[in-house]
Amino acid sequence: MPEKATIADVARYANVSRQTVSNVLNSPGIVKEETRRRVLAAVEALGYRVSAAARQMRTGRSRLLAIRIEATQDGMNVFDRFLHGLTESAARSGYRVLLYAADDDRSEIATIDQLLGEFEPDGFVLTSTHHGDPRAAWLAERDLPFVTFGRPWDAPAATHPWVDVDGAAGTEAATRHLLDGGHRRIGFIGWEAGSGVGDDRRAGWSRALAAEGLDAALAAETDGSAARGRAAAEDLVARGADALVCVSDTVALGALQVTPAVVGFDDTPVAAAVGLTSLGQPLAEAAARCVELLTDRLSARPGASHVLLSPSLVIRKDPRP
Amino acid sequence: MPEKATIADVARYANVSRQTVSNVLNSPGIVKEETRRRVLAAVEALGYRVSAAARQMRTGRSRLLAIRIEATQDGMNVFDRFLHGLTESAARSGYRVLLYAADDDRSEIATIDQLLGEFEPDGFVLTSTHHGDPRAAWLAERDLPFVTFGRPWDAPAATHPWVDVDGAAGTEAATRHLLDGGHRRIGFIGWEAGSGVGDDRRAGWSRALAAEGLDAALAAETDGSAARGRAAAEDLVARGADALVCVSDTVALGALQVTPAVVGFDDTPVAAAVGLTSLGQPLAEAAARCVELLTDRLSARPGASHVLLSPSLVIRKDPRP
Repeated sequence: MPEKATIADVARYANVSRQTVSNVLNSPGIVKEETRRRVLAAVEALGYRVSAAARQMRTGRSRLLAIRIEATQDGMNVFDRFLHGLTESAARSGYRVLLYAADDDRSEIATIDQLLGEFEPDGFVLTSTHHGDPRAAWLAERDLPFVTFGRPWDAPAATHPWVDVDGAAGTEAATRHLLDGGHRRIGFIGWEAGSGVGDDRRAGWSRALAAEGLDAALAAETDGSAARGRAAAEDLVARGADALVCVSDTVALGALQVTPAVVGFDDTPVAAAVGLTSLGQPLAEAAARCVELLTDRLSARPGASHVLLSPSLVIRKDPRP
Repeated sequence: MPEKATIADVARYANVSRQTVSNVLNSPGIVKEETRRRVLAAVEALGYRVSAAARQMRTGRSRLLAIRIEATQDGMNVFDRFLHGLTESAARSGYRVLLYAADDDRSEIATIDQLLGEFEPDGFVLTSTHHGDPRAAWLAERDLPFVTFGRPWDAPAATHPWVDVDGAAGTEAATRHLLDGGHRRIGFIGWEAGSGVGDDRRAGWSRALAAEGLDAALAAETDGSAARGRAAAEDLVARGADALVCVSDTVALGALQVTPAVVGFDDTPVAAAVGLTSLGQPLAEAAARCVELLTDRLSARPGASHVLLSPSLVIRKDPRP
């Protein structure tokens, strides 16, 4: 490895003690002007750089934001795009992103606890919030700075900052799009009830129908697979559905085998590949807002408490029957 | 934030100087047994933890491995799965993954240089190696520990550790699979010549044909898009091709519109969604090997210089015409 100047090298070069070098760097006011100049000249001559470790010892700040890397289940998720945006936004604010893996909430909390003793991240970004999620409360109890991408489903009045995408607004727009195309009996294929994200997406569909005085009767629950999506679509079409709003692109892909009037959610590569109209989340924007809310808190700046972004309908086919 | 015990708290509690606490932690041999016990009791009573910053100051090791997060182009890449494997493997070896973003080689090198002055990562993982890639040479010149996921295309005898997946072995297996299904005029749809990865994948196809005494004449170059893949497939089929091996799932998706006897590469979600036979890279294994080769070097253990893994053919349909 290349020789890197240490504080001892600087001290030797400037012919002062290490403590004096440290004083110049940390409390320059207590050092004589002539000495201060000699030390700074040595710092420059040797290309000495204050390491993150030294800075952290001094400031108590690591300039690290930690986030769990999510496992790609069927590869149809959007986490990788969020993470890329987070890394770019964090860098613009002078932070780096530290990754960790965890299998569930409990192991994530244990890992966070371990990281606190190791790298002392300045803040945490939690993703995939859900009902019964213990993570936010754990961090809040310890007064650790964090932001969640995903709203606090069990505690709408939670005081921690969060960023989320308005799924209901998305499915409402999707349903209106199908209504505008002339469909009247629009069904919804969702996940099992009890998922915050899934129930929210269903609510938008039923709201759009209610606004037209239509009944939200044609709904089905699935395990989220394309196969179950197809079975649900067959059932709903048999019951008279002429179009389907789906909770995900995976489910929509199954539904597409049954009827062409389908809208998916998340605008995954599969949607683009098969020409499926879908709802895209503004992930770079969501990541930037997460960094903003978190760094506001880290800098004790007044900031927004939460941000709810709208998804965009990416139309890939004519909605008319 | 919660009160965290500092080295000063430990010193006060044990009624010794901070230097003595430091000695107990770093050079216990020079401290009297009774004092050492008293300090360690204070460490335990106060729950004092040696921070990463303090440890790094002492050991010169940050326990961080840095990697660039790749931009998801069309969402059909495999980087996210590699990164997840890397995070898990690194943790098992006592390392964490630090992310950075960069637009090109030049800005990646500048970012690495900056990181060296900030967080001092112990090692780097470079991905997407390519012809004319200046990154490995830059790191090697500075004797910085690194591993590449992707072989050194311009310098096969490079001495740095690398891990790669044998693309040629993959397309050779894909071509044999189509030959076994009864096809004889098998074409190849690739990228423009000059890409290390693309040329390697083409070489496997032509090798399999040569082994059967067949001519590797039906080849086309594309920009990698599905639209160009479709146009190339139309051309090759018009020239007599009865099956097609493709350099990527994206290109294969276009080719599938023309003929069903198509094999893709990378086993993306799209391949699973549309029932496309494809070649899957062992990404968790590749990530684990990267960590192994890098940590071998960091610990001055003798280790393998490089590892070439084989992709697996994921068969989703009968190859017979």
